[in-house]
Amino acid sequence: MSASIKEMMQEIGQKARAASRAMARASSEQKNQALLHIAKLIREQASEIQVVNQIDVDRARKNGQDAAFVDRLTMTPKTIETMALGLEQIVSLDDPIGKISALQKQASGIEIGQMRVPLGVIGIIYESRPNVTIDAASLCLKSGNAVILRGGSEAIDSNTLLAKIIQAGLAAAHLPMDAVQVVSTTDRSAVGEMITMTQYIDVIVPRGGKSLIARLMAEARVPMIKHLDGICHTYIDADADVAMAVKVCDNAKTQRYAPCNAMETLLVNQNIGPTVLPLLCKIYQDKGVELRVDTATRKTLEAAGFSGLVDATEEDWQTEYLAPILSIKTVADMDEAMNHIERYGSKHTDAIITNNQSQAHRFLREVDSASVMVNASTRFADGFEYGLGAEIGISNDKLHARGPVGLDGLTSLKYVVMGHGEIRT
Amino acid sequence: MSASIKEMMQEIGQKARAASRAMARASSEQKNQALLHIAKLIREQASEIQVVNQIDVDRARKNGQDAAFVDRLTMTPKTIETMALGLEQIVSLDDPIGKISALQKQASGIEIGQMRVPLGVIGIIYESRPNVTIDAASLCLKSGNAVILRGGSEAIDSNTLLAKIIQAGLAAAHLPMDAVQVVSTTDRSAVGEMITMTQYIDVIVPRGGKSLIARLMAEARVPMIKHLDGICHTYIDADADVAMAVKVCDNAKTQRYAPCNAMETLLVNQNIGPTVLPLLCKIYQDKGVELRVDTATRKTLEAAGFSGLVDATEEDWQTEYLAPILSIKTVADMDEAMNHIERYGSKHTDAIITNNQSQAHRFLREVDSASVMVNASTRFADGFEYGLGAEIGISNDKLHARGPVGLDGLTSLKYVVMGHGEIRT
Repeated sequence: MSASIKEMMQEIGQKARAASRAMARASSEQKNQALLHIAKLIREQASEIQVVNQIDVDRARKNGQDAAFVDRLTMTPKTIETMALGLEQIVSLDDPIGKISALQKQASGIEIGQMRVPLGVIGIIYESRPNVTIDAASLCLKSGNAVILRGGSEAIDSNTLLAKIIQAGLAAAHLPMDAVQVVSTTDRSAVGEMITMTQYIDVIVPRGGKSLIARLMAEARVPMIKHLDGICHTYIDADADVAMAVKVCDNAKTQRYAPCNAMETLLVNQNIGPTVLPLLCKIYQDKGVELRVDTATRKTLEAAGFSGLVDATEEDWQTEYLAPILSIKTVADMDEAMNHIERYGSKHTDAIITNNQSQAHRFLREVDSASVMVNASTRFADGFEYGLGAEIGISNDKLHARGPVGLDGLTSLKYVVMGHGEIRT
Repeated sequence: MSASIKEMMQEIGQKARAASRAMARASSEQKNQALLHIAKLIREQASEIQVVNQIDVDRARKNGQDAAFVDRLTMTPKTIETMALGLEQIVSLDDPIGKISALQKQASGIEIGQMRVPLGVIGIIYESRPNVTIDAASLCLKSGNAVILRGGSEAIDSNTLLAKIIQAGLAAAHLPMDAVQVVSTTDRSAVGEMITMTQYIDVIVPRGGKSLIARLMAEARVPMIKHLDGICHTYIDADADVAMAVKVCDNAKTQRYAPCNAMETLLVNQNIGPTVLPLLCKIYQDKGVELRVDTATRKTLEAAGFSGLVDATEEDWQTEYLAPILSIKTVADMDEAMNHIERYGSKHTDAIITNNQSQAHRFLREVDSASVMVNASTRFADGFEYGLGAEIGISNDKLHARGPVGLDGLTSLKYVVMGHGEIRT
């Protein structure tokens, strides 16, 4: 790494740390005022944003980026309005900071409570979507944190303009402009510095594909809120309602293919397989979903007249397709299903379809995933759907925040002790 | 590292991971039965424990270890009974595992709750005290985790016997004996392997001095629950009750010198200094506490007839003495005190003595430490005193658990979703 990049990042870190102290003290009114001002400026400067974004888009096209990439990069009047609406939504959320849990009096006389406080400085590392600049910054601000944003080099012009707008909003609310800083270099070594400067950054939230996350995981010293894979399972139990199983499993796979909470593997109890598989697989094949099946599932489906099935390999069970492909396995019972999930799952989201309460309870308790569901589509694993209002990301780790992470995940609890002159004896 | 140590540690890790699944399913009754059986065996085998412990003690003496070291290593009838009582106390604590928070119905119809679950596998790395083997294992078992214990090589004979007793207790309760494993090699590279085997260990709790923690921090890939320093401050505000300030500050420094929650720096408001400092420093000097003071404090104390004061250096403000030494600084106001704490503190425990409610509230909100206290001795920062029942350690970090860490800190929350066939639209 060049000395200048290191110095630049250290300076950004110092400024963020200093700004984080002021942010921790900021009132809810101040923070909301800043967020509303940013929304106002975004609407006012919508056409300017599009003009600047076009520079990024043209460069991406010139560099031969594919259509999906350009699509993620492009800001339309609709995506710009969505950013403004998102800011207003975050204004409407309760401010978690400063709340103290009920004080508990101890034998010594002291009273103990816990106060919710910001983490301090959050680092966000993301790829081509410029709207993450606004979404991530607004969650960090509302939760009283300072934030360092490092977006993809392809979106640098859009992100730089959005950062200016955010800083104008901060200034209007008399908050430190350094509370939101965008790393202005496209030099990749800036990321290497960010993920190791533990003295200035309290947590990194990487947003992007698996290869980005894996690369960061290998080198990071700063803790991360992240997930690598979303290999989500649905298990159709012997006691499932067949119509419900068909409806939910169709939705879990086909409502959208790309999200991390889409189902990738279907596990079916052998007793219900002959009933439910033909109904469900008809729908999948009509929608163009490729089915990769084990031997038992193949037998069931071929007996029902299906063709075009692919043999599932060991690799299929550990693959997050993010595409119209589904692996299917017939299992003897719920234990076999849970063992499969334990072995191949990614601890993201797993569901059971059953009307049997004791089976449901065992599945909920024993499956070790961030979200465990009964009779619902895995697609619900999302901060909005869980009532968090918004999410900064989804964590598959068990320490700190697990599952969809909202404002609370960007905070910590400190102990507050109210005494009356008590001493320890 | 030798290949054989690596293989041995990997095998221990695999066994722990497998055992952790059974532990997560274990009932409270089973876990309590194991803990009570261990307590029974400890009492029954008390003399055998002392005989084996004597081997460690003799070796330590032969190796020239100092008296304090030998003291920490030695197990007496009293320390053995304390271990048995500790086990019984942990039996009496509520089992956190499996509890589900109130379900919240969402607009889609799904109901969301959070279930408390074990972290999985805990690694404990500690130094010479063999009682940590029992204390740490019992907290990990009660919270449904498997644990890998790596004690100091000096206590290897004691720890190996205690591990056998624990495993007999597990077997009696039909729990997997691999749920508690003691690393039987004294090869230091075993620690290096432990702190990097992220696939098998979910969190490391290091228990020991600063040099141990610093060494582990530099190399660990597994997250740690830990603190490095306890540079605890008390600030005597202008509006403090003088008698209370004297009583609390005496206790915070002199009740015991070695614990991490003992006060190391006293900050005194300039308006109250001339009243409170002579009263307090008389007590300190009578107890043999060396006073390292800034210029203003020296003036105040010398005007009151004190002598034998040492000039505080920059290094004093950042030193955790753990000894009868106290640094004292006179400050203009609370802001100067908070700035000092921000600059030199270790985010462990800091207190204010004041009768002014608004000052107290600002101090509680703005001081960024794991424990912040009003009108109480910093010595209260402790899991027992906070009503947690027991503690596995104290964390100065903000992610996951902060401050004294009890059973809950060894657990995580997973989302549980109860549906009725809902799909995402």
